[in-house]
Amino acid sequence: MPLTKRIESAMDAALALAAGADAPPRLAAALPYAVRPGGARIRPTILLNVAIACGDDEPAAADSAAAALELVHCASLVHDDLPMFDDAPLRRGKPALHAAFSEPLALLAGDALIMLAFDVLAAGGQARALGLVRLLAAYGGMPGGICAGQGWESEAKVDLSAYHRAKTGALFVAATQMGAAAAGHDPLPWEELGQRIGEAFQVADDLRDALMTEAELGKPSGQDAVHARPSAVAELGLRGAARRLDDILAGAVASIPACPGEAALAMMVRRTATRLVPADLPARIAAE
Amino acid sequence: MPLTKRIESAMDAALALAAGADAPPRLAAALPYAVRPGGARIRPTILLNVAIACGDDEPAAADSAAAALELVHCASLVHDDLPMFDDAPLRRGKPALHAAFSEPLALLAGDALIMLAFDVLAAGGQARALGLVRLLAAYGGMPGGICAGQGWESEAKVDLSAYHRAKTGALFVAATQMGAAAAGHDPLPWEELGQRIGEAFQVADDLRDALMTEAELGKPSGQDAVHARPSAVAELGLRGAARRLDDILAGAVASIPACPGEAALAMMVRRTATRLVPADLPARIAAE
Repeated sequence: MPLTKRIESAMDAALALAAGADAPPRLAAALPYAVRPGGARIRPTILLNVAIACGDDEPAAADSAAAALELVHCASLVHDDLPMFDDAPLRRGKPALHAAFSEPLALLAGDALIMLAFDVLAAGGQARALGLVRLLAAYGGMPGGICAGQGWESEAKVDLSAYHRAKTGALFVAATQMGAAAAGHDPLPWEELGQRIGEAFQVADDLRDALMTEAELGKPSGQDAVHARPSAVAELGLRGAARRLDDILAGAVASIPACPGEAALAMMVRRTATRLVPADLPARIAAE
Repeated sequence: MPLTKRIESAMDAALALAAGADAPPRLAAALPYAVRPGGARIRPTILLNVAIACGDDEPAAADSAAAALELVHCASLVHDDLPMFDDAPLRRGKPALHAAFSEPLALLAGDALIMLAFDVLAAGGQARALGLVRLLAAYGGMPGGICAGQGWESEAKVDLSAYHRAKTGALFVAATQMGAAAAGHDPLPWEELGQRIGEAFQVADDLRDALMTEAELGKPSGQDAVHARPSAVAELGLRGAARRLDDILAGAVASIPACPGEAALAMMVRRTATRLVPADLPARIAAE
């Protein structure tokens, strides 16, 4: 089965767990709205690629891990889009959940998606599920997960390294480590790959925000400059940021632990990276 | 060890899992603020009493279940107090978390407490933990947990029975079922006891809201009338609501499944109930 099909099937199975005749109808409608259509599904794609590189001997565990991780990511987008944070009117080319439903329903949908993520992990009943629960909780919560990352935005003095590690990096480390753990491998050696992919994603995101239009992104562009957020483009310039992206990707490929599918995984990392930035990146940089 | 000590120790151990040198300091301070001082800790108290009635053969599992349940309860209070929901300035006699910190930090603290709850369950590594994760996710999330309960408040047409079952009842059913599951018993026969305790708590809460002062409650009183919320007092009057509370408690005691500590548990249910309403309830009703 192609990976995108595996991921969407796993997301469908997850959403089915949260559906029921007794549920409040608007919140029930908000959950699939938050999840579909997906973005690039980059985190579960990485997770499944790592699981496959590690042998994927228990595909149901990998599928539930992929769905759980994407659910927590979707929850974080719904909460981050709220007026109290990014106040983003658009997400994935349609109104943000709080704009389409309401702020209370956006908050509740995020909460319910987080709960659902853990339900999905436990539902399979695999022995590996407990380890997956711990990884997801660690990279989702405090002290170093995405909640911590967003929490740094409420600090007067920001530890930029801890901020990026938690805000963007955490769910990529979760992706590589949960992929390995779902396939019965020790997750620890997979931390560096996740960190480097997270750094690459952060730099690529900064480049996209600076170079692409709202129509291309499906959300407002130029937001780093508007909110005066630290970014690789602000720090290194467009050309410097593009060079930094190349360096990080080389390091990511070099960090892949020895495993049966090492070569194929290296190709996946390079392929994913090319999808992160516009194909005509050099021309766009030259035109600025 | 007295139950209150067991509960607070388990809460301390849970909070320690979320602490770290790299954490954003204000969010790190918000988590214990949300958890301490506790209210009556009624849900974990019920959970531990049921576990003890079932033999409590794995106290660490019961302790982590008690802490996890209370963490999800605390998270729901923090989120429900936000201006977009109840807009409550006070909680447990001090400023609500969003008032003491900020709305973004209140939202993030709630998210982090939910993640932490599942981490706590999985941290012990007991075989029973997966079942506990499923129970907590079900009674916390959708379609029938506390998220669903709060979600009903966004509906034009409310299924009152589903609303109360999810909003107040869910975490009491979680308490009795998780207590049984943590002690290795089948949780299913424990659903009715949790439901009835939840109903009793709802009616007692309505009576407290109508009869007690802000100083006594540690939060604004008379809120059901202010927000025109359905309540047992509005439906049955003060005397009718007090009679209904007695009936529900009799049913709760009668529903206790056969177990080693059945008699002691029945006493606990009656004792808990007397703590839910003022000792001078009849006099207060007569004075209205």
